[in-house]
Amino acid sequence: MLTLDKVYHAAYVLKDVVRETSLIKSEKINPECREVYLKTENLQITGSFKVRGAGYMISQLTEEEKARGVIACSAGNHAQGVALAASKYGIKATICLPDGAPISKVEATKSYGAEVVMVKGVYDDAYKRALELRDEKGYTFVHPFDDDNVIAGQGTVGLEILNELDDIDAVVVPVGGGGLISGVAYVIKHLAPHIKVYGVQSAGAPSMFNSVRDGKIEKLSSVSTIADGIAVKQPGENTFELCSKYVDEIVTVNEDEISSAILALIEQHKMIAEGAGAVSVAAVMFNKIPVKDRKVVCVVSGGNIDVTILSRVIERGLLTSGRTCNLCIELMDKPGQLMDVSRIIACLGANVISVHHERASETKDINGCYLRLVLETKNYEHIESITKALSDEGFRIVSVQ
Amino acid sequence: MLTLDKVYHAAYVLKDVVRETSLIKSEKINPECREVYLKTENLQITGSFKVRGAGYMISQLTEEEKARGVIACSAGNHAQGVALAASKYGIKATICLPDGAPISKVEATKSYGAEVVMVKGVYDDAYKRALELRDEKGYTFVHPFDDDNVIAGQGTVGLEILNELDDIDAVVVPVGGGGLISGVAYVIKHLAPHIKVYGVQSAGAPSMFNSVRDGKIEKLSSVSTIADGIAVKQPGENTFELCSKYVDEIVTVNEDEISSAILALIEQHKMIAEGAGAVSVAAVMFNKIPVKDRKVVCVVSGGNIDVTILSRVIERGLLTSGRTCNLCIELMDKPGQLMDVSRIIACLGANVISVHHERASETKDINGCYLRLVLETKNYEHIESITKALSDEGFRIVSVQ
Repeated sequence: MLTLDKVYHAAYVLKDVVRETSLIKSEKINPECREVYLKTENLQITGSFKVRGAGYMISQLTEEEKARGVIACSAGNHAQGVALAASKYGIKATICLPDGAPISKVEATKSYGAEVVMVKGVYDDAYKRALELRDEKGYTFVHPFDDDNVIAGQGTVGLEILNELDDIDAVVVPVGGGGLISGVAYVIKHLAPHIKVYGVQSAGAPSMFNSVRDGKIEKLSSVSTIADGIAVKQPGENTFELCSKYVDEIVTVNEDEISSAILALIEQHKMIAEGAGAVSVAAVMFNKIPVKDRKVVCVVSGGNIDVTILSRVIERGLLTSGRTCNLCIELMDKPGQLMDVSRIIACLGANVISVHHERASETKDINGCYLRLVLETKNYEHIESITKALSDEGFRIVSVQ
Repeated sequence: MLTLDKVYHAAYVLKDVVRETSLIKSEKINPECREVYLKTENLQITGSFKVRGAGYMISQLTEEEKARGVIACSAGNHAQGVALAASKYGIKATICLPDGAPISKVEATKSYGAEVVMVKGVYDDAYKRALELRDEKGYTFVHPFDDDNVIAGQGTVGLEILNELDDIDAVVVPVGGGGLISGVAYVIKHLAPHIKVYGVQSAGAPSMFNSVRDGKIEKLSSVSTIADGIAVKQPGENTFELCSKYVDEIVTVNEDEISSAILALIEQHKMIAEGAGAVSVAAVMFNKIPVKDRKVVCVVSGGNIDVTILSRVIERGLLTSGRTCNLCIELMDKPGQLMDVSRIIACLGANVISVHHERASETKDINGCYLRLVLETKNYEHIESITKALSDEGFRIVSVQ
């Protein structure tokens, strides 16, 4: 059973295993708030809070269990948390990963000293294989969230917040399987019950949201979100109970809101958050919870975003904030047209990133062609001044995006 | 004159103005080191250390000077540092910016409460205008680096490092005008002279490097680097003296090394550094200074990188690490060719980002055409397996990049 003692004990045990991450004040996330602080678990070792729960759970194994080793299944942060925690205690860890897992996560897991077993298929196949190996080899299975010791370990995040700031109104926590928020909410409601605890899920994977709303555990048939770290189909039994009892409200954020939050953390705080880590910030940015005049802590739970996805988020962010512009212009297929367009764009101070010039049968004129440009621009007004100048000189703008 | 007392005084005065930034242990920057720590001034308020020097300098003005206000000239971090520091002391700040300055920096400077004067031209024009305004209005000019109080403020970075870690072998510091390293080197050589102090410049702007090497102040005719925060044409008189006396060695890093360092900080530490902030990490990563078995602190001096540039750095990083691949294949212009290529690529688990199919007269065959693909790949071996599979099925690879 989860107790406050267990969380205090976890904090003591984890002292030399995890980093006590900074609470960083955020001036601009939402100016309606009195103050916003970020609990930067993305700067935790292994890049996420998961090492706390895994570390405490592993520390509590018997000597015999430790000698046999542990097994876990994850394509992400839990894998790295278990791998590092096991290596700190000198225990053998085996991690089953689905074979589609990003190479960067596979390499990171190996680098912490775990043995990696690649399993053909998806997460569920890897999970099945992990349970088989547990039974064959006598390993202890480290559950990613539905275990009292794991939850107690995650609860240390709550203790650290209360130790540093005692006059807060609300804590906002990302929710996947529910391990982190269960621990944090348990601690806060026992020590400072006046503080609200909000959970945030991706609208593309609202398993805990649905389950708590309906008062029973529900399973999603599929999940789809860039917040892959919280894309969980079904909450755990313990975490469902704890969330139902101690969490004030669970809200959801959509993909564009998550992307904006990732970009805001980059631009305003020089920090990388993964989608799952940024949902708490998204919820505050987009007023999904009551924030007016409140002092709020957002737990930024992890930073392990694939650089390819990061690149896409940034590009999308540039596009939606008017700092990149895809322009398609119809030209007459005669000399000098490209020069004219280039001149207009240069005069207005935009930077050309790519040019694609094609003769196209779908233009009105048989000699017509399309010029597709990608431009670096300053903002929407800048884009408008460019399209206006082009129109004024007789060019037809086919599309602006 | 710079004294240790002045630096201690600056640390006292700045207590409530700046953030005492974390020293974060870095496991993988260079495995040859005994240990590497990052002094995260990119997480400083305003995103760089500059607020320290500006803050101390402004705090030491007379009441009369304070009443008249301050002026500065900068396209970057110094502008934001002066703006924030002035607002903390309730002083009017005017900042001259060249009109080509990125919109994000202009907005940030305004958001800290400064009056922004946009000056037509480049940095030198803005500088001239700032001096004119100083003379006209009686403002005090806040120099970006060549001022004892500014240097004393930057020196507090050195104090904080020594307060937290006392058994280090070397400190590595980015060098532009030389304000930061002058302060840090002065502190370290007075308190712990056995610790080496290394300066790092961009090879595209080696003004202090050249000047110290030649024993006299030299001016570069032009500078070009993504590390715009340290693209300074000429060192200051004070900073040149201090660097010559207290810095053990100055080294340079190139653009690709800087990009790699930025990417490593993102992937390994979930942190954004600007080019100028990452040169210290680049110097350690690429063995520009003796690191073997040493315990080294890299000052990551700032994080204010334009998102557009960040996006380019990431894309370049993906390309140079084999995680993106530009492929050009010659096809016969007959049905089914695109399907065949798509099938081969899909089977090997690569993700197609963009496709461009063109009939091209430069192909050998009059019916030939080019298929240009951008793929998300896992690594170089993955790219090789794809090009081999395509060749094996008879496709001619025109280029791989």
